Amino acid sequence: MLVRYSNNKTCGHTPAKKACGYEKMFDIIQAHNKTKSTTMQNQLKEKKPLFLCVIGVTETAKIQGISAAGANPEITDYTPPADVELLHFGKCKCIPGVPVTPDGIPTPALITMSALKLADIPTLVVNAGLKVKPHVPFVELGGSPGRDIRTGKALDNAEEVLNKAKVAGQNLAKTADYLVIGESIPGGTTTALSVLLAMGVDAKGKVSSSMPINPHDLKIKTAEAALEAAKIEAGKFADEPIMAVSSVGDPMQPALTGLVLGAAKHVPVIMAGGTQMAAVLAVVNASNPDVLDNVAIGTTRWIVSDKTADMKALIAEIADVPVLAADLDFSNSKFDGLKAYEAGIVKEGVGCGGASIAAILKTNGKVNKNVLLKEIEKNYKQLLGSANMELPESS
Amino acid sequence: MLVRYSNNKTCGHTPAKKACGYEKMFDIIQAHNKTKSTTMQNQLKEKKPLFLCVIGVTETAKIQGISAAGANPEITDYTPPADVELLHFGKCKCIPGVPVTPDGIPTPALITMSALKLADIPTLVVNAGLKVKPHVPFVELGGSPGRDIRTGKALDNAEEVLNKAKVAGQNLAKTADYLVIGESIPGGTTTALSVLLAMGVDAKGKVSSSMPINPHDLKIKTAEAALEAAKIEAGKFADEPIMAVSSVGDPMQPALTGLVLGAAKHVPVIMAGGTQMAAVLAVVNASNPDVLDNVAIGTTRWIVSDKTADMKALIAEIADVPVLAADLDFSNSKFDGLKAYEAGIVKEGVGCGGASIAAILKTNGKVNKNVLLKEIEKNYKQLLGSANMELPESS
Repeated sequence: MLVRYSNNKTCGHTPAKKACGYEKMFDIIQAHNKTKSTTMQNQLKEKKPLFLCVIGVTETAKIQGISAAGANPEITDYTPPADVELLHFGKCKCIPGVPVTPDGIPTPALITMSALKLADIPTLVVNAGLKVKPHVPFVELGGSPGRDIRTGKALDNAEEVLNKAKVAGQNLAKTADYLVIGESIPGGTTTALSVLLAMGVDAKGKVSSSMPINPHDLKIKTAEAALEAAKIEAGKFADEPIMAVSSVGDPMQPALTGLVLGAAKHVPVIMAGGTQMAAVLAVVNASNPDVLDNVAIGTTRWIVSDKTADMKALIAEIADVPVLAADLDFSNSKFDGLKAYEAGIVKEGVGCGGASIAAILKTNGKVNKNVLLKEIEKNYKQLLGSANMELPESS
Repeated sequence: MLVRYSNNKTCGHTPAKKACGYEKMFDIIQAHNKTKSTTMQNQLKEKKPLFLCVIGVTETAKIQGISAAGANPEITDYTPPADVELLHFGKCKCIPGVPVTPDGIPTPALITMSALKLADIPTLVVNAGLKVKPHVPFVELGGSPGRDIRTGKALDNAEEVLNKAKVAGQNLAKTADYLVIGESIPGGTTTALSVLLAMGVDAKGKVSSSMPINPHDLKIKTAEAALEAAKIEAGKFADEPIMAVSSVGDPMQPALTGLVLGAAKHVPVIMAGGTQMAAVLAVVNASNPDVLDNVAIGTTRWIVSDKTADMKALIAEIADVPVLAADLDFSNSKFDGLKAYEAGIVKEGVGCGGASIAAILKTNGKVNKNVLLKEIEKNYKQLLGSANMELPESS
């Protein structure tokens, strides 16, 4: 039975959404390419997804001011493993508490975990290149942590990782009706920018940030230094995606690309993330554009409404894939740590948008933004209690 | 539609089968516990399985005369990774050719690969503890290669591996109607014997061998030396399965146990292997016997007909689970390397029995022993050609 209460209406409950003018079905915004988005949503409704989370690290994240995915730059090595521990156990093992921004705002893994739990969605972690291994099982692809892209030699074995990921994608496609593939890699929007530039996509000023004030200048400066170190002009690697990620990318990119290339030949794939997925989309598009008929981007309202970036323009420049956005809304949360998401902090990560979309679709809309917020608040409260964290409720 | 041509008849086409007196449905022998076997087969018919292959190595395999899973003891480190490469690519990458016994008889991975291909069954490799990593994606559980059991200190972190495998099993159970879990670990029947003895199962003279003449004396001597080094009497670890595998086991055992414990709560599990699975069954039984309602052993006719061992008695002593055996028959093969299986060489491994059963059930009997042999011969011929191997056809 279709739950019609939020079906096919123009969203208009809050000013933020009125302004955007998007259409939506359930609590999913069809942010780009409405026809394809509707087809994809209808195709996936009540189907069984598998959620993959590709995790990795890059030294690029340790450039001061680049990443908010950790209380300080050095701790970003722990953020991805801690994120996937949270997905599996509802708590982290490799760090006390949970990953937070420098302001103490909790990781989006909290959203992902809540969505996966509500809809009973299986999860598999994929290691693209880590320094700290998580205390969970993970798929190994033989990747290594990424170097600072300002070396111009970011990755050693991108092609090997991509090919192994392809094999994994082919096999995992047979285990689910569709795949949702998220990521956790601090510094990932900067490495996305440099790969996009290397591939000739006009991405300056368009990539999102986990910080409310997007440090575009620092990102552009870093990406330009990367291209200079790799001795390339912008656009030089438009047809050489492996060279692009090897020179100025991060380990998540070839792993996620391989999974998409292997799986999307057989089943639909939701690439779950913010502007980081634009870089992966460019790499997939340059590798085998045919699979893109089976691909959508799944993200959050915070990303598609982000005034400091331009996700839609980025995607449109690369390929005409649908963009779906979970219409998450934390404005009425009783926790300041969650309310902060409405101020543009964090926005996306650990596939939280795609996981929310999958939870909504699998349950045919029974999971909606209210149910999600309730579960997220419940899990957040438990975490605060168990970790003795000092993030008070709103007064 | 049911394909009835070999349904529910007493098998009786060849003397070997007449002698055994087993009942069978399709080309699957119900070797133990007919009622439960029938129920399980009916439950799995036309359902979608996921095949897992748990691979690891132990120094125990390098004791001269223990293992035939490699042309010589030192090469057994390469056998498991080569086996799973064969499953994925139809050829090995880490060695030239394919794993063979000292007599040149090919690995049972050839059977597994053919069965998985015929029925389009997805495959995931699980690393329980390797020296040589395969050129395929695999699930990492943090395990290490096993020490020679005669140290009495075979494994360092069996409990950690078991717990991670449990998490993987819980998640993977949601991606398939049932799991088939095989293994590749040279020396595994000897480590099975020592674990069974440590747990109080009367296993002497009952475990199979990949050689036609079962070196029981050497195995018993090795297992007894292991128990002595661990300073335990037989049966001492009847209720301490982790201690048993940590002291005198191999890395495959805790990994496979964890997968079964995690998955069999939710979906049926076929433990695919020979007498090695008896040891895993004992460990599962001592950990959580409740899950065994959802467990069957899946093996080959060569194992259940093996006069040099006693699989049925072993299983019966541990738990009343059904034993299914693929009625594979290579007696009419045009290749000597395959005919040798009928002389009791190899018999089982890489989950070849369970994979064959899954292929037969998934296709509702359309895959049968003749179809299997044809595919196996085709793949074997290709391998002989590509590897320039010198294993001639029968003259």
